[in-house]
Amino acid sequence: MSTIWHQQTLNLRSRSRGFHLVTDEIMSQLDRIDEIRVGLANIHILHTSASLTLNENADPTVRTDFETHFTRAVPEDTSLYQHTLEGPDDMTSHIKASLLGSSLTLPIRNGRLALGTWQGIYLCEHRNHGGSRSVIVTLTGEG
Amino acid sequence: MSTIWHQQTLNLRSRSRGFHLVTDEIMSQLDRIDEIRVGLANIHILHTSASLTLNENADPTVRTDFETHFTRAVPEDTSLYQHTLEGPDDMTSHIKASLLGSSLTLPIRNGRLALGTWQGIYLCEHRNHGGSRSVIVTLTGEG
Amino acid sequence: MSTIWHQQTLNLRSRSRGFHLVTDEIMSQLDRIDEIRVGLANIHILHTSASLTLNENADPTVRTDFETHFTRAVPEDTSLYQHTLEGPDDMTSHIKASLLGSSLTLPIRNGRLALGTWQGIYLCEHRNHGGSRSVIVTLTGEG
Repeated sequence: MSTIWHQQTLNLRSRSRGFHLVTDEIMSQLDRIDEIRVGLANIHILHTSASLTLNENADPTVRTDFETHFTRAVPEDTSLYQHTLEGPDDMTSHIKASLLGSSLTLPIRNGRLALGTWQGIYLCEHRNHGGSRSVIVTLTGEG
Repeated sequence: MSTIWHQQTLNLRSRSRGFHLVTDEIMSQLDRIDEIRVGLANIHILHTSASLTLNENADPTVRTDFETHFTRAVPEDTSLYQHTLEGPDDMTSHIKASLLGSSLTLPIRNGRLALGTWQGIYLCEHRNHGGSRSVIVTLTGEG
Repeated sequence: MSTIWHQQTLNLRSRSRGFHLVTDEIMSQLDRIDEIRVGLANIHILHTSASLTLNENADPTVRTDFETHFTRAVPEDTSLYQHTLEGPDDMTSHIKASLLGSSLTLPIRNGRLALGTWQGIYLCEHRNHGGSRSVIVTLTGEG
């Protein structure tokens, strides 16, 4: 038994503003997780106006309701903020990114992410036109 | 010196809606942390309507005030959401879970969690009747 | 190749209430990260009324707007909370600390944090007079 380290940059295709289930897009690009019996996967997004979270992976209305909530809770009122050069979705995207977080550190068991039945990875795209997003995945564990 | 890996699923007993200090319940069930001189503990909850956070471990009114805040900040108004089949606490629980987060990654020093004096682990139960909750704890470090 | 473990407590100088870029203050005190080719850095704050987040590292108005947002979103109205012995910024600081989180787990690549171009580490000081703050940094990776 030895400790495996593996790191890989992945590109996630451009998505519309909102919350998107990306578990399969990440896992299908990821190498070597099958070699790890017990370990951790850190998934880190390299941007400050998009974020990652874990939530319900079945009903798409959960993702719609997330967008509704965050648009209401962080109002796009440019009179509230100074950093609005790129539009009303500029500063609000930074705030949402920090509320939700830029990374996930997830358990690995028997070569797979050990998530709950209903847990999936969301890409949270806070910009109106965010473009493609990059994440660095770092895997470590006992092989 | 070698790197230790240890992973364990723990069940946390059913609790009422609100914020609950569970440091002792987790630590009393956890094996092998005493073997680790320097390391990390990842605690991951396997649910999407409960969450984990670290906060004040002494005054119980802090936990009451947390519940007050989140109930006010994420209103249980079913007209705001589509995903409400399980009641007014359904979608709001998913939102709170992502605001607070599904996991903690904590330092280990000399066989114990290296937390601040006032830091304790909260189980955040967002459902009115959530039932028992499971977490996966992954320990790694230098033994 | 072997797995390196390194842990270090760092003190961050006292700052005014608000959001502060501390990437350089942390990195300048940190040993041994240059030995790690692929790894993870966990930065954990030992307090419950200050927090850490990752966000935009260039325009200082982003940090000002963060303070504006969180002061508005978590109102300092003592009639809302019980835990207010230390003043109107007492309970609100605990809430903000959990919304933003007490730790960051970041990828290391080629001896440096592998952050996005615009990402920097913020110390989020929620108290009016918080004083100096301590973090534990745990590094692990393949040397």
